[in-house]
Amino acid sequence: MTQGRQLHLGAILEGVGTDQYSWRDPALPGDASIDIDWYIRNAQLAEEARFDLVFIVDSPFITPDTAPHFLNRLEPLTLLSAVATHTRRIGLVGTLTTSYWEPYNVARQFGSLDHISRGRAGWNVVTTGLEGAARNYGRDEHFDHAERYERAHEFVDVVRGLWDSYEDDAFPRDKVRGIFLDKAKQHRLDHHGRFFRVDGPLALSRSRQGQPVIFQAGDSAAGRDLGAAIADGTFAAAQDFESAQQYYADLKGRAAALGRNPDHIVVLPGLFPILAETDEEAQAIARREHEALDFDKLLVQLGRAFNYHDFSQYDPDAPFPDLTGVTLNSYKGHAERIIATARDKQLTLREAAYQLGQWRTSFVGSPETVADEIERWFVGRAADGFNLRVTRPGDFALFRERVVPILQHRGLFRTDYTADTLRGHLGIPVPSNRHAAPVESRSDDLVPAE
Amino acid sequence: MTQGRQLHLGAILEGVGTDQYSWRDPALPGDASIDIDWYIRNAQLAEEARFDLVFIVDSPFITPDTAPHFLNRLEPLTLLSAVATHTRRIGLVGTLTTSYWEPYNVARQFGSLDHISRGRAGWNVVTTGLEGAARNYGRDEHFDHAERYERAHEFVDVVRGLWDSYEDDAFPRDKVRGIFLDKAKQHRLDHHGRFFRVDGPLALSRSRQGQPVIFQAGDSAAGRDLGAAIADGTFAAAQDFESAQQYYADLKGRAAALGRNPDHIVVLPGLFPILAETDEEAQAIARREHEALDFDKLLVQLGRAFNYHDFSQYDPDAPFPDLTGVTLNSYKGHAERIIATARDKQLTLREAAYQLGQWRTSFVGSPETVADEIERWFVGRAADGFNLRVTRPGDFALFRERVVPILQHRGLFRTDYTADTLRGHLGIPVPSNRHAAPVESRSDDLVPAE
Repeated sequence: MTQGRQLHLGAILEGVGTDQYSWRDPALPGDASIDIDWYIRNAQLAEEARFDLVFIVDSPFITPDTAPHFLNRLEPLTLLSAVATHTRRIGLVGTLTTSYWEPYNVARQFGSLDHISRGRAGWNVVTTGLEGAARNYGRDEHFDHAERYERAHEFVDVVRGLWDSYEDDAFPRDKVRGIFLDKAKQHRLDHHGRFFRVDGPLALSRSRQGQPVIFQAGDSAAGRDLGAAIADGTFAAAQDFESAQQYYADLKGRAAALGRNPDHIVVLPGLFPILAETDEEAQAIARREHEALDFDKLLVQLGRAFNYHDFSQYDPDAPFPDLTGVTLNSYKGHAERIIATARDKQLTLREAAYQLGQWRTSFVGSPETVADEIERWFVGRAADGFNLRVTRPGDFALFRERVVPILQHRGLFRTDYTADTLRGHLGIPVPSNRHAAPVESRSDDLVPAE
Repeated sequence: MTQGRQLHLGAILEGVGTDQYSWRDPALPGDASIDIDWYIRNAQLAEEARFDLVFIVDSPFITPDTAPHFLNRLEPLTLLSAVATHTRRIGLVGTLTTSYWEPYNVARQFGSLDHISRGRAGWNVVTTGLEGAARNYGRDEHFDHAERYERAHEFVDVVRGLWDSYEDDAFPRDKVRGIFLDKAKQHRLDHHGRFFRVDGPLALSRSRQGQPVIFQAGDSAAGRDLGAAIADGTFAAAQDFESAQQYYADLKGRAAALGRNPDHIVVLPGLFPILAETDEEAQAIARREHEALDFDKLLVQLGRAFNYHDFSQYDPDAPFPDLTGVTLNSYKGHAERIIATARDKQLTLREAAYQLGQWRTSFVGSPETVADEIERWFVGRAADGFNLRVTRPGDFALFRERVVPILQHRGLFRTDYTADTLRGHLGIPVPSNRHAAPVESRSDDLVPAE
């Protein structure tokens, strides 16, 4: 069968979850977020279902009111390195901030994960939304939003430069003649920029996929510009079909304007499906969960986009408060969308909290209905695929066993892997080494037409 | 059998090696240093031989003349996380510098490794010897030696404080009543020190061994003071029996002077044995390897302790040069010992390079002879055990299959594990959480008398 454009699926392994109720599922171990076996098992399940990748979200700041999974969890790089050797094909994407790390250490750790996984590593570049993170890293104030994004551009440039420290044939390892390294093929970076000075070289050669895949999730104008410039994939939350379509066209347009092939930046919004045998059952579940939500916790979740702005100070049944004067220095794109949506739909604070507080795209219905909705977004260029939040075992099983086969039957999703690197799964070319003589981009890891 | 004091053994997994010739061994894969399967296999072999731990050395700076293993290798945290899930008992110790990392990130990654390994993580605290590292981290100049050690003290304090962010019963995870966290048992650190400000808390609970084990390898006065203050184990190179005895007594004395139990800081010098069936064969091998050494490379190795000071500028057959005016800001303790030894023994530069350039303790002989030497150092309180450099498969096999059984037969080394945490293997108590009500130190993970 000749196949056209194909869906991509990721699994956000979120342990006990970032919502209010997932952790209370009797089938989910209460310590899932710190149990490496939970991550390995779910990565293997995602691999059996032929997912492109697993995804680990992150943030370097918590309070006592932080959501359960965020409170106590394994760190992404160590976690993914352990998962790497218990999987063979699936991509391994971890979140790490450019605001509070050193580029040299980031380049080493993701480069090392890329070797450990034999070419399946990905880095979700974030700039950190919550201002409190600054005080875990020696600063009184968080970096300003614009500066964060300028740092991120330079940071990623440095890391990519370090990843090219060795040409691919730099190590003859000729035991007879005694030549381990061809010294001419080790390159210093000598980067002296506005934010970073890094001489290099990195003590690590390139992996089978050349460099780890870069993801980015920013949704503000600065976030989209960063994604368009540096990302092989994006992971921004989508509120609804129309806004997702607009984001998709806007992001790919920005990439094209920079001279990039827009097909080489895949758009994978997060997805939190509510599945049951029938639409009616699924809607009943969604209704029950909605009614069980704790309003105070919802206000905290809503406030998170505004650096934990205290929304409990307002009348919940008055119109959404005027936030003029509140600096949007956290999750700026998301905060702007909440304000705009509340204004356009004339929501009360209570309505806004229930509709917008949970930060997620939720498809509700039977497997057929959810598959229809996935296809609609995919065909309508609102997404190139989805990143599925994995917490409760029953929900994940229904998706793998009921939704995925429908997508495969429709020819939208692979029935087997055709590559064994993350770039290969995503159809993203291997970048040539900046120091090597120009050659055709290697194509052996790309998804071939069947 | 009632056993007294027991030897501890570590395996330094060094891939293709940091000496001149190990990588040319036909039995050693040329890419061992970047092949996770090589590390997993050797960690499993060390575990089968009942070693206490595997050890990963590190340094964040290279040049084209750096030794083979250092040129291109996996990063310690990612490497050890992958090894963790393929072993069950052996400790996992990685090197990481306090000069160019953030304490919050270090606390998270080692804490995470400690969960992934179920209580087997250890951190070898270093301050970075080579000045070029500064230029990979945005600085023109390396930190001064004294300042590096002051930073290290505070850095480790911060990390240990972060590791105690949660009391051990902080997470009731009561699904029925809906209580995930007991908020009173989450603690901020609010550290505001000379070098670091870190508010916390860390998003990670403690592991089965309470906190990762701390190692330290500094040999200068400042290094010994740091080790005596913070370390559960040290890993300093030893030149000979007498200087090792002096170091041992000095370090334990410094620890006792700080009110610590000197038995709770284990001294494990590195060991590079040259083994063969007979003493004569082993000595012949040692002689051949010695004669095959490239003198220019030896001078580079000698110069490494002096921040790659260029020794090729001196007459090799004149007395060891006067280095007055050369700042000892790299591996200061080692550099001071080279100078003192060369002076005391009236060595030429050539002799010093051959005798001192390779930075290692080498026992040469048959398995019986090497076991005798190990016992002599152990009984004579020159060491509590050794960290064995693992590169060439044949050497490691001889040690495991021939030397270890002799040590076991003599009652010096365990024949099976009696604990399953690194603290348990080393006989180091689990630290109580600083926020918990005082209780007796937990003893279930300690090595019981048999």
